[in-house]
Amino acid sequence: MKEIKIFAPATIANISCGFDVLGCCLDTIGDEMIIRKSPEKGIKITKIVGMDLPYEANNNVAGVAALALLDKLASNKELTNYQGGFEIEIYKNIKPGSGIGSSAASAAGAVFAINELLDKPFSKLELVEFARKGEELACGSPIADNVAPAIFGGFTLVRSTAPLEILQLPTLKDLYATIIHPQIEIKTADSRAVLPDKIPLKDGVKQWANVGAFVHALHTEDYELLSNSLKDYIVEPHRSKLIPEFDKIKKTALKEGALGCGISGSGPSIFTFSKGIQIAEIISDKLSLIFKNTHIESHHYVSKINTQGIKIISIQ
Amino acid sequence: MKEIKIFAPATIANISCGFDVLGCCLDTIGDEMIIRKSPEKGIKITKIVGMDLPYEANNNVAGVAALALLDKLASNKELTNYQGGFEIEIYKNIKPGSGIGSSAASAAGAVFAINELLDKPFSKLELVEFARKGEELACGSPIADNVAPAIFGGFTLVRSTAPLEILQLPTLKDLYATIIHPQIEIKTADSRAVLPDKIPLKDGVKQWANVGAFVHALHTEDYELLSNSLKDYIVEPHRSKLIPEFDKIKKTALKEGALGCGISGSGPSIFTFSKGIQIAEIISDKLSLIFKNTHIESHHYVSKINTQGIKIISIQ
Repeated sequence: MKEIKIFAPATIANISCGFDVLGCCLDTIGDEMIIRKSPEKGIKITKIVGMDLPYEANNNVAGVAALALLDKLASNKELTNYQGGFEIEIYKNIKPGSGIGSSAASAAGAVFAINELLDKPFSKLELVEFARKGEELACGSPIADNVAPAIFGGFTLVRSTAPLEILQLPTLKDLYATIIHPQIEIKTADSRAVLPDKIPLKDGVKQWANVGAFVHALHTEDYELLSNSLKDYIVEPHRSKLIPEFDKIKKTALKEGALGCGISGSGPSIFTFSKGIQIAEIISDKLSLIFKNTHIESHHYVSKINTQGIKIISIQ
Repeated sequence: MKEIKIFAPATIANISCGFDVLGCCLDTIGDEMIIRKSPEKGIKITKIVGMDLPYEANNNVAGVAALALLDKLASNKELTNYQGGFEIEIYKNIKPGSGIGSSAASAAGAVFAINELLDKPFSKLELVEFARKGEELACGSPIADNVAPAIFGGFTLVRSTAPLEILQLPTLKDLYATIIHPQIEIKTADSRAVLPDKIPLKDGVKQWANVGAFVHALHTEDYELLSNSLKDYIVEPHRSKLIPEFDKIKKTALKEGALGCGISGSGPSIFTFSKGIQIAEIISDKLSLIFKNTHIESHHYVSKINTQGIKIISIQ
């Protein structure tokens, strides 16, 4: 195996009740990447198509994640006999700053692909650890709630970040996500600054009741319970103010039959979940109309939940 | 059916990560109650053995819960043809103020028994609603996290209190609880006063990650994950200060192989969970020694998780 081409999916993090812990993997939105073995040691980004991103490996999220993997290999000589390095080509579709895991796709994609080329010396959990280094470069903190679903697929829960512990949750088979991405920029600093350091205990109780209910709903295939649990008393009231038309979007989505609606990651993308593709597509149409009327350009996507995570397109 | 004798079980509420939402039902600790039909309308408490509690129905938790049920019957004539009232005998074993659901057992027992005598006009959820009225009398607030496991059995999650929504979670078959009840009094006002109104967001995140993990562990029969999730960053640091020897108890329990250890309800009882009865019994012995050395009297119990809830002992 000399070269691998992969699909690196977009992801939703901060799913309503599950701020910082619950994420899921998407299917129809994502980047493509080609990673190939190279006689030259180290990581070389040889091509970036679609977005203007840095080529220096130690300044590129895919590069940084890949370098973390190589570091681990260097200190564990028994893991592989391979002596060369890797070239990375990135065909970017997910816009950075969209809130659907653009940096996570690149970081997770790079380490997944290298692991495949080396005949899988690392576990999925270890790949998440490497990919978090990319997230640290992109977000300033090694968040795991996008890279976890990108690598594990389906719904994931980050139970602990130190030590890292990821739970792979079941997925409902008729569950579809609609994503609407208004083409506005929210600065990371702003989306952090609006969050309070402290929250009312009574809101915390409602939030963790809903996280428990969300996990139970996935296990029992209970769409109604899933819908009831998709509430956010903590973060949404603050961050939604940064997203124009959020309240209208949410009201419309729920009126059209969405199970829930919330901010994807730290925004500005908004996600909704629906039972069945039909409702998901109707919602996509209705929501994009709302932005059309306000002259804010928006992109919209409908996707099944991707239970596989990163996908191999071809191998040479 | 004229008379029914039941076992009304003790319960653990506020299970570690699940303050105000997670509870479970015990098997070997509980009250007995006899409830019989009487030609006289209304509720009459005719006997209370074991504790000194009020006989006036509207001042007794079992009486108040039963009256709430009768009120609902009075406004829904189609539910039953029965025109009489009920006599209640209470054989109390669970000490009020113990933290293992003494008032909940009485309230839940009364409404469960009357519902049986009337051929079950009400659902379990409705019974929890009635029983909450008893809790309101006992605790000043209509808490549901003890009456829910008493009526549903096993582990329950109170997703919402208005409207009331209870989830019945799966139970691990080898799971045993050890309860140690130091014979001290903690005033409800004190156990409330130590709780902060606001909690750090970062602690909230850890707490809801653990609630999600706890529910996932029950579904996947993962004892290790259950153990990892049995943490309380919010309430225990405050309330444990009111319980002498708490830190020593917890340290000893975990050293002896407990999966987790926390405050039952608002204390002073402390619970531990173990895999298998043997560890649960060893822990029971070790913990009671700790209190013996401090001259605080303590009661201790070992119980399987009771998946049935209230049990019918006999029917006439």
